[in-house]
Amino acid sequence: MKDKDIKKINIGMIGFGYIAHGVFELISSQKEYIAKKIGKQLDIIRIAEKDPDKIKKIPGDVSSNIKISSDAADVLSDPEVDIVVELIGGIDPAFEFVSSALAAGKYVVTANKDLMANRGRDLYRIAEKNNVDILFEASVLGGIPIIGPLKTTLASDRIYKIVGIVNGTTNYILTRMEKDSLSFDQSLKAAQDMGYAEKANPSSDIEGYDAVYKLAILSSIAFNSRVTPANVYREGITRITSSDIEFAREMGYSIKLLAIGTDEDGVISARVHPSLIPGDHILASIEDVFNAVYVYGKYIDRIMSYGRGAGDRATSSSVVGDIINIARNFDRERKGIIYGCTCFENKKIRSIDNTASKFYLAMDVADRPGVLAKIASVFGRHDVSINSMIQKQTDVPDGAKLIFITHMVKNKDLYLSVEKLKKLDVVRSVNSIIRVEDLD
Amino acid sequence: MKDKDIKKINIGMIGFGYIAHGVFELISSQKEYIAKKIGKQLDIIRIAEKDPDKIKKIPGDVSSNIKISSDAADVLSDPEVDIVVELIGGIDPAFEFVSSALAAGKYVVTANKDLMANRGRDLYRIAEKNNVDILFEASVLGGIPIIGPLKTTLASDRIYKIVGIVNGTTNYILTRMEKDSLSFDQSLKAAQDMGYAEKANPSSDIEGYDAVYKLAILSSIAFNSRVTPANVYREGITRITSSDIEFAREMGYSIKLLAIGTDEDGVISARVHPSLIPGDHILASIEDVFNAVYVYGKYIDRIMSYGRGAGDRATSSSVVGDIINIARNFDRERKGIIYGCTCFENKKIRSIDNTASKFYLAMDVADRPGVLAKIASVFGRHDVSINSMIQKQTDVPDGAKLIFITHMVKNKDLYLSVEKLKKLDVVRSVNSIIRVEDLD
Repeated sequence: MKDKDIKKINIGMIGFGYIAHGVFELISSQKEYIAKKIGKQLDIIRIAEKDPDKIKKIPGDVSSNIKISSDAADVLSDPEVDIVVELIGGIDPAFEFVSSALAAGKYVVTANKDLMANRGRDLYRIAEKNNVDILFEASVLGGIPIIGPLKTTLASDRIYKIVGIVNGTTNYILTRMEKDSLSFDQSLKAAQDMGYAEKANPSSDIEGYDAVYKLAILSSIAFNSRVTPANVYREGITRITSSDIEFAREMGYSIKLLAIGTDEDGVISARVHPSLIPGDHILASIEDVFNAVYVYGKYIDRIMSYGRGAGDRATSSSVVGDIINIARNFDRERKGIIYGCTCFENKKIRSIDNTASKFYLAMDVADRPGVLAKIASVFGRHDVSINSMIQKQTDVPDGAKLIFITHMVKNKDLYLSVEKLKKLDVVRSVNSIIRVEDLD
Repeated sequence: MKDKDIKKINIGMIGFGYIAHGVFELISSQKEYIAKKIGKQLDIIRIAEKDPDKIKKIPGDVSSNIKISSDAADVLSDPEVDIVVELIGGIDPAFEFVSSALAAGKYVVTANKDLMANRGRDLYRIAEKNNVDILFEASVLGGIPIIGPLKTTLASDRIYKIVGIVNGTTNYILTRMEKDSLSFDQSLKAAQDMGYAEKANPSSDIEGYDAVYKLAILSSIAFNSRVTPANVYREGITRITSSDIEFAREMGYSIKLLAIGTDEDGVISARVHPSLIPGDHILASIEDVFNAVYVYGKYIDRIMSYGRGAGDRATSSSVVGDIINIARNFDRERKGIIYGCTCFENKKIRSIDNTASKFYLAMDVADRPGVLAKIASVFGRHDVSINSMIQKQTDVPDGAKLIFITHMVKNKDLYLSVEKLKKLDVVRSVNSIIRVEDLD
């Protein structure tokens, strides 16, 4: 292709933090390569960043034509900008910026999971009205292609389940606890030292919020119905102990923070919580900061995607992949929807109370005759049926540890039974309640 | 969306075998679902199948409007047909049909790996000339999205390695040999009984030809340069013995048929052969007919996709995914290239002779002093350096088995050294030569 035939696609970036650096570096260094591949040249013509320190870091030598500003409006109002790349994160003011871009007939690429999980529908409506689209592959699982496949190759299938390890920080912590026999606090500190967890406030990761956003987005796309973070049950990993890891291993399980979405006959269940999974399942071998997600469909049976779910390089690959998707058939005179919104259904959400799970329970009890009978009787009255049990001696005089794994039971019934157990004089404490997912 | 707003996309199918049945069933049963999702209705309006027995199996009740014929020309010449789905397989007459369809300005979707691996470039040229496209997600890895991701989300990255288990039949056979301690012949029979391997002539699978086609296609896309089956080194699994499986396991390895493509500084190497891989690597846990492929890139580091690489349901999901990709923005008046050909480079191919590998070698030797010194001396003269060795007793008097794993060595040098070893009086036979891939 001759150089004069190559059309230029103009990009305006809003936000110039960690990921934006990666995007800038990728586009700058691979400009010729991408032009050869798609016959279009990607040109960053504007950058808006309100932090003066970050503005200083914008490499000025790559293109002297880049207009740098502290005001997003400069990007949004420039009629030359074809694609706006929003990388400031959070809902406000990102929503305002993105909706203005779409209303101005610009395509948008974002890595903002918080924004898409909470306001995706509103943004899609504005995009559709203006015959443009918003792409957000990078908002879920970093460099792993999942939104694109769900919206294209897998679009004909009826997806009924998604199960994934979607947060790298918590997976790193659980891996350290399992492999190096560290405590939760020691592993969290290791994650912070590696830069995987925020030092000031790691709760977005360890309390499961990050995974909730991602699951809300994935479930919405997979089940064609809007699932918001408020619809997702959430439990973090802060209460997982070294003993839990140890007992789980003895029983053939690993503990992972899972994001699980299911669509059973049009009723959606979405939940993020630690889970015991079989030690020989592929998800059990996903270690450190790697992510993986299984997608189950009527036709495909199951597929799994695995890779780095975070980091500036992997994430920027997805951002630029979306830009390429838009650029490939870009036509200023005749824009169009690329994937579009696929939430055309309005399915019910099942509450966690009415969801059935298997459970792992660890409790300290008195070590004397009749204890098990009393506990079994409480379980029986609440429809909790026991699959397996192990007993461990403790250092406490006359004490023992009991570890149960139940059969499937409604979450509500399990929690009721635990309340009753706690009132038994023979039960000293119920230390751990963790769901068990057998996975297939 | 109101029904009258829904545009109809007309599909003509050529070939009505196993996969075509799946495609027909999927489109028929999910027509409304797909229409809601993409705002277009997929209508199969013509089917051409030359086998009268298969024509009888075409369900006539789904739509009385389907015109059935024994002549592909009836599909190709119908101006109402927007998308031609070619599912007859093989190069001839598929090439003729597909090129005619493209020349007539029709989009093409195919699952034909043989055709795309051998004649992809020619077909792309015709497609480009006519401003249409040919999509073939189903030609590689059945229901697992891999071509779409490589052409979109991963298009910005510089992919430098692909390693995959891309043939389900051979993976099933090797899994049975490893898990059930069956011989190769017993496992092949099991695969034939399950319908995974052809009874009459299983060689396309077990000799590695099927994997070669797939690797040629994946390497061409990943490395942006044409790789044909003739460029791919091939070795099947027919010479793998139960002893190899057993010795490999003892040394911590599994044996898998790998398809490996690499691009080292613009020189491509592509090869299909059995390999010892570390037993704790994720690829070692890919069992039975499942497939998995790792893609390594400068930005993504690595991603892996896993799923069912064959079967009518999984494969038809990819065929219809491609149809959806075309249909989503279909415009009769203004067609366009969707992904297009991305082989814009012309890279060199490295011969297997000049490729470096680690090797597993199993040989029967005389059990007497000085044997190892003689063998080591031959290895030394050919730059073969030994990483580890185990010795096993045999039933043969005065005989022993030696198992070596070498360090990296040029294939040429390794084979030269084996020729020399065979001439030593102390070496009774060199039974197995299998490459070892440490994988990272």
